[in-house]
Amino acid sequence: MTRQDSRPAYGVHSEVGRLRKVLVCAPGLAHRRLTPTNAEELLFDDVMWVENAQRDHADFVDKLRGRGVEVVELHDLLAQTMSVPGARDWLLDRKITANEVGLGLVDTTRAFLESLDPARLAEHLIGGLATTDLPDAYRTGHIALARESTGAREYLMPPLPNTLYTRDTTCWLYGGLTLNPLYWPARHDETLLMKAVYAFHPDFAGSTVWWGDPELDWGQATFEGGDIMPVGGGVVLMGMSERTSRQAITQVAAALFRNGAAEHVIVAGMPKLRSAMHLDTVFTFADRDLVTLYPAIMDGVHTFSLRPADQAPGIEPVDEGARPFVDVVAKALRLPGLRVVETGGDVYASERQQWDSGNNAVAVEPGVVFTYDRNTQTNTLLRKAGVEVITIVGAELGRGRGGGHCMTCPIIRDPV
Amino acid sequence: MTRQDSRPAYGVHSEVGRLRKVLVCAPGLAHRRLTPTNAEELLFDDVMWVENAQRDHADFVDKLRGRGVEVVELHDLLAQTMSVPGARDWLLDRKITANEVGLGLVDTTRAFLESLDPARLAEHLIGGLATTDLPDAYRTGHIALARESTGAREYLMPPLPNTLYTRDTTCWLYGGLTLNPLYWPARHDETLLMKAVYAFHPDFAGSTVWWGDPELDWGQATFEGGDIMPVGGGVVLMGMSERTSRQAITQVAAALFRNGAAEHVIVAGMPKLRSAMHLDTVFTFADRDLVTLYPAIMDGVHTFSLRPADQAPGIEPVDEGARPFVDVVAKALRLPGLRVVETGGDVYASERQQWDSGNNAVAVEPGVVFTYDRNTQTNTLLRKAGVEVITIVGAELGRGRGGGHCMTCPIIRDPV
Amino acid sequence: MTRQDSRPAYGVHSEVGRLRKVLVCAPGLAHRRLTPTNAEELLFDDVMWVENAQRDHADFVDKLRGRGVEVVELHDLLAQTMSVPGARDWLLDRKITANEVGLGLVDTTRAFLESLDPARLAEHLIGGLATTDLPDAYRTGHIALARESTGAREYLMPPLPNTLYTRDTTCWLYGGLTLNPLYWPARHDETLLMKAVYAFHPDFAGSTVWWGDPELDWGQATFEGGDIMPVGGGVVLMGMSERTSRQAITQVAAALFRNGAAEHVIVAGMPKLRSAMHLDTVFTFADRDLVTLYPAIMDGVHTFSLRPADQAPGIEPVDEGARPFVDVVAKALRLPGLRVVETGGDVYASERQQWDSGNNAVAVEPGVVFTYDRNTQTNTLLRKAGVEVITIVGAELGRGRGGGHCMTCPIIRDPV
Amino acid sequence: MTRQDSRPAYGVHSEVGRLRKVLVCAPGLAHRRLTPTNAEELLFDDVMWVENAQRDHADFVDKLRGRGVEVVELHDLLAQTMSVPGARDWLLDRKITANEVGLGLVDTTRAFLESLDPARLAEHLIGGLATTDLPDAYRTGHIALARESTGAREYLMPPLPNTLYTRDTTCWLYGGLTLNPLYWPARHDETLLMKAVYAFHPDFAGSTVWWGDPELDWGQATFEGGDIMPVGGGVVLMGMSERTSRQAITQVAAALFRNGAAEHVIVAGMPKLRSAMHLDTVFTFADRDLVTLYPAIMDGVHTFSLRPADQAPGIEPVDEGARPFVDVVAKALRLPGLRVVETGGDVYASERQQWDSGNNAVAVEPGVVFTYDRNTQTNTLLRKAGVEVITIVGAELGRGRGGGHCMTCPIIRDPV
Repeated sequence: MTRQDSRPAYGVHSEVGRLRKVLVCAPGLAHRRLTPTNAEELLFDDVMWVENAQRDHADFVDKLRGRGVEVVELHDLLAQTMSVPGARDWLLDRKITANEVGLGLVDTTRAFLESLDPARLAEHLIGGLATTDLPDAYRTGHIALARESTGAREYLMPPLPNTLYTRDTTCWLYGGLTLNPLYWPARHDETLLMKAVYAFHPDFAGSTVWWGDPELDWGQATFEGGDIMPVGGGVVLMGMSERTSRQAITQVAAALFRNGAAEHVIVAGMPKLRSAMHLDTVFTFADRDLVTLYPAIMDGVHTFSLRPADQAPGIEPVDEGARPFVDVVAKALRLPGLRVVETGGDVYASERQQWDSGNNAVAVEPGVVFTYDRNTQTNTLLRKAGVEVITIVGAELGRGRGGGHCMTCPIIRDPV
Repeated sequence: MTRQDSRPAYGVHSEVGRLRKVLVCAPGLAHRRLTPTNAEELLFDDVMWVENAQRDHADFVDKLRGRGVEVVELHDLLAQTMSVPGARDWLLDRKITANEVGLGLVDTTRAFLESLDPARLAEHLIGGLATTDLPDAYRTGHIALARESTGAREYLMPPLPNTLYTRDTTCWLYGGLTLNPLYWPARHDETLLMKAVYAFHPDFAGSTVWWGDPELDWGQATFEGGDIMPVGGGVVLMGMSERTSRQAITQVAAALFRNGAAEHVIVAGMPKLRSAMHLDTVFTFADRDLVTLYPAIMDGVHTFSLRPADQAPGIEPVDEGARPFVDVVAKALRLPGLRVVETGGDVYASERQQWDSGNNAVAVEPGVVFTYDRNTQTNTLLRKAGVEVITIVGAELGRGRGGGHCMTCPIIRDPV
Repeated sequence: MTRQDSRPAYGVHSEVGRLRKVLVCAPGLAHRRLTPTNAEELLFDDVMWVENAQRDHADFVDKLRGRGVEVVELHDLLAQTMSVPGARDWLLDRKITANEVGLGLVDTTRAFLESLDPARLAEHLIGGLATTDLPDAYRTGHIALARESTGAREYLMPPLPNTLYTRDTTCWLYGGLTLNPLYWPARHDETLLMKAVYAFHPDFAGSTVWWGDPELDWGQATFEGGDIMPVGGGVVLMGMSERTSRQAITQVAAALFRNGAAEHVIVAGMPKLRSAMHLDTVFTFADRDLVTLYPAIMDGVHTFSLRPADQAPGIEPVDEGARPFVDVVAKALRLPGLRVVETGGDVYASERQQWDSGNNAVAVEPGVVFTYDRNTQTNTLLRKAGVEVITIVGAELGRGRGGGHCMTCPIIRDPV
Repeated sequence: MTRQDSRPAYGVHSEVGRLRKVLVCAPGLAHRRLTPTNAEELLFDDVMWVENAQRDHADFVDKLRGRGVEVVELHDLLAQTMSVPGARDWLLDRKITANEVGLGLVDTTRAFLESLDPARLAEHLIGGLATTDLPDAYRTGHIALARESTGAREYLMPPLPNTLYTRDTTCWLYGGLTLNPLYWPARHDETLLMKAVYAFHPDFAGSTVWWGDPELDWGQATFEGGDIMPVGGGVVLMGMSERTSRQAITQVAAALFRNGAAEHVIVAGMPKLRSAMHLDTVFTFADRDLVTLYPAIMDGVHTFSLRPADQAPGIEPVDEGARPFVDVVAKALRLPGLRVVETGGDVYASERQQWDSGNNAVAVEPGVVFTYDRNTQTNTLLRKAGVEVITIVGAELGRGRGGGHCMTCPIIRDPV
């Protein structure tokens, strides 16, 4: 992959510097396939009203654009990618295989997908392909077996509703990116779609990839963008959680150090609780020196520092012991301290708001963040701290337990 | 892999013909690591008293030997394999990687494992390696990160307690075998261990492999031996279940047909219920024309036949519609019908006995089967039907929800 | 309880006749106490944004009033009741006991509640009283024990968020009502609040009670209004479900027959599935001869008829066998048949809409119903069938898995 | 109830003094009704092999008798009670009601039960009565409704498998007893059976009851014997857990103080974790000054003392703050300290053994205890501490998560 000259340099150099370009993914067909029966398997807590979720997402995108951010959308990118010679073959060769759609269904499924225009093809690549989606002309005796299968096996391509959370799948860390092996098998193909974009789309091809490749098996090394924050100054925060493992963290740290892209990785060892899914569900930045966090979880974090080392494996771990995570981060950023806005309200309200992504803010510039409208108490505290809070309607979008930070993958962000 | 001349030809030619050689795996270190907290993640319902489970398993093995069966045990096989030049390197190169044990721990972990004799190495390959297992001489600053990780990530090698169920990992189908991609990621490494045995152990190297390779990613194509029964006459029964997918079934059928190893695969489309984990949890053979089954599940099976076809993909599916599975099987075996022994007792007792592996019989010759002692009513019905029933103590061994059929992987079995 | 002359006669004589008076309960303090940790214990699937739920509920009430329905609200009714001499003592004598608030906390809790005006008292009776709600002046050394207790025991009075579903707690069946013993202990006190209203509130005192008394222990006899429909002509439909038992159904049938209030109870024996919580989650009336239903559940219903009998116990059951429930209902209503609007959309959409209360319509007159806005496909089918559909915003209100039918307790409804 | 002179005075004056008389309940019909489907509802983790559980229980009883303990068994006691004039009517009047068996089934069910001899009646009172148990002569058209009901409603009397744990239902605390309101509704009728015994059986009638009556509704005041330990010297330990509430603890303390039966209640505020079901699952006495405990839970206990007070409510709470529970107990017993034997083995083994009731010892005299055989490491530590450990076979009996302490209700035990 070689970079093209005409486009601005991609890269994310902070968590709160001016956001110039960002990737999102609108709700769609994948979410129409979410039912009470399969929602858990697809990692959603509840079904959503897709039309309203689309409206609220479009409103979020409009507001981002109103702030001068260039917003690209995954269905669009993928449709554009599918128009590039070779890209469709590359992706369908990898998706439409005997292992995925089943022997006897490969040819007809491929033929059907080849018949689609790029936009509809992109829709099915993200939204999945049910046996009932296949027109009669493409149905053979083999389809009956699929109909009697269970769960994801009923699909010729399973839906990928978690594409909504573009944050997780790829991470720009300073001047390069990672193609992340996600924790749940149900999400693995999200990264394959992103590889197609980065391999073929003219605006993305040629980007530097630090680590990760969806065509390889990464075993225990799983890595999700919700745990990763390039905060500037060569520092990257990484939550070590259920979904992001030490096996991945250490490899990415070594790759960043080796390439001179970073010099300090601060690891937040999350307590062993389900509610601490990702670091950004309990800790995000709202301004240069201001974070919003959920103390009930963050108080239990065990902090480590990883630094470059001359000898293999190229990283040196330091156990920060009892030092609070926030203090380690402040010092790394050469700040006297971080101002902290905790989740608002009494014990009931703060637990409710953390659940509703109250701490999951995404900044468009220092001191200007997007959050869900429903966390009124935390939003008020942020405003009292001088932050401009722009709201996203969260009634539907929030049902997958992700907020503004989760729904955005920054591609160009300035340093602070 | 080329076959050695001196040994008898491996192969399984029926479900009830004389059993001549079988693979089992004794309980051990892996089960000492099962706790109430991690049991579900490791796919066990409950913890077991390991010493007693070992005693009961040894008794089962003794009785098999008393019936003239040659029994090989996986810890032993693996220890022997680890003594073969090149085998240890081959396996540790694949197990002790940055993706699995974590960067910074690869060298010391490998060094520790290299220091072990083959038997202790085999014990850890099956039983896992906890951070606390590493002697001080092999510990570095990197170990602290591992200690703060959760679940399987705390381990340098996670335990593999489901090795107890050797049935699932590999299947001899007539003259060749499959190296099965198992459904749950927690079990994937079981197949890698078996590949090491089949690649290096002098008694196993050179075997014909029909399908499967643990070094590849099989996606939705998962296959578990508990669903697979080579019943003779070129017929193979395959349960299409939560764990064994149509994506795998069709590939294996095509491979068998292509090699002339079988000419008819009968697919039992299992109802979408958790209790129907594998076909052999609800249906096994006890004699040439006698099966024991649990009607509450088997009555809901939807049957398909797969037959060789000249054109790609080489298989032709037939939807058997409303025809009972048992009738389709009888006809394929050229029998006028199958005698059926249902799970015994009233509605409570039969549900209890199915749960306790009451239908999970394994035959050593026509009309002689092993089952758990606790399913007294089903055992009595089998005996009244003329079957000789030899019992296994199931108090501990049964807690992983597998019986005699699950705990045995036949390697040589005669036709009937 | 003797009826007062000046008010119109209370009574519900159909499911779709003109609705003249209805009881609802607005969201409030109880829902502010719902957290991810306690939601399941309090029978909610998710937390809600209370302010918006209140707004949406107020809009629902406005629209009901716009249709000429007199709407009474439970907080208001309870506040008015608490102003009636004797009522406050009656209720606090039963709520503020050693069994509920704990010895050592009875006097101070009572003193605090006595200090409140009727409106705030009503708010805490519904919304619960946390240990932190007690002002310092009312705190003693006994409070520490409560603080260290778990779940509902942390509360001096647990919150009652399911009051939102006024349908369940009491049922007007023709000219009298039932005070229902609810299935879950967490809801028992809802009925006690309603007894206070019916015992003391001038608009409600004197009503005829057919059956039920929250001061008695009803054992297995549990009864919830969501399962009960007085459809007119002396017929009552009753869903026999997880929550409404045969032990209660038969007692209520006998009471109705004994009082000449009904002559035919049609029992819908619900399939043994969690999704069929109440009959009205899968079956409601939208017009005289039009129902909306979810076939995946209703097709599994086993129907019984109960008729008056001369001998004890005064009821005669008839097993309707394979006759469809809808046919038995139509015949009882002397209709040639019932028109049926099934949950709309494909297999995914219909399952999603049933979950979102798509079939949970409440009529204000024949052919005019309220449903949630989000079930657009079912709403369209109802409209095509000639029904006027008025929508309720369901984004927040729907999270407890109840719709318009669940949120309304008709008090006066005309026959059709 | 007036005491009869000829019998020895009942009373329990310590946890480790000589045990003279004890109540147990053998496994039986109730456990034959446990299935994978209903086990959770009936509070069991797994089904058991009833015949072997009976054998192991009989062996436990034999060993108790071998130690000079008089053992009475609940089926026997209940059969003897059912022979006392008036007792059968008293109990059936309360059990065979419209609320429990259902209108239309009361008379025939009662008639059937009246036809049974006392032993078979006792068997059904404990083991339940399924619709299929009713002979044809006693079946009417009403039975069909019951057959279509779900869960416990399918039974005319639900089974009571937790009777196995006689510890919970009644507690002798010094010279009187409590008739405990149990937490789960599925267990309420256990206490009713015990009231019949204490009201009518000649050996038990006339006993002093400090608190509790299964004919009353106790609301949040629930109390289970597994949390309660009369350790001597007027001290009683009470675990405040999911199942034993402060509402009950404070009432029992006040009753004991009022009667001069105790002067100090030490409350162990259990951490909010499921694994800490009862105090005796993590803490029991093995000798005068020796306890065995599970530190992972006991380290999180928050301790309170309750003392008599002159004013209402007659108790004075003292928050012991950070003082370890073991220290507070030692001081109350006027001991310099308690010797502690922790659950044995490494982190895996100790968690496994706590789960398998490793700390659930019951003493027959100071320094002589019964525990399950499977917890070999904890048993070895107890033996090294000078305790004589007699083992119970736990393979089947342990599946309900209760050990020797849970399965015994001491009736006469000497002080130490």
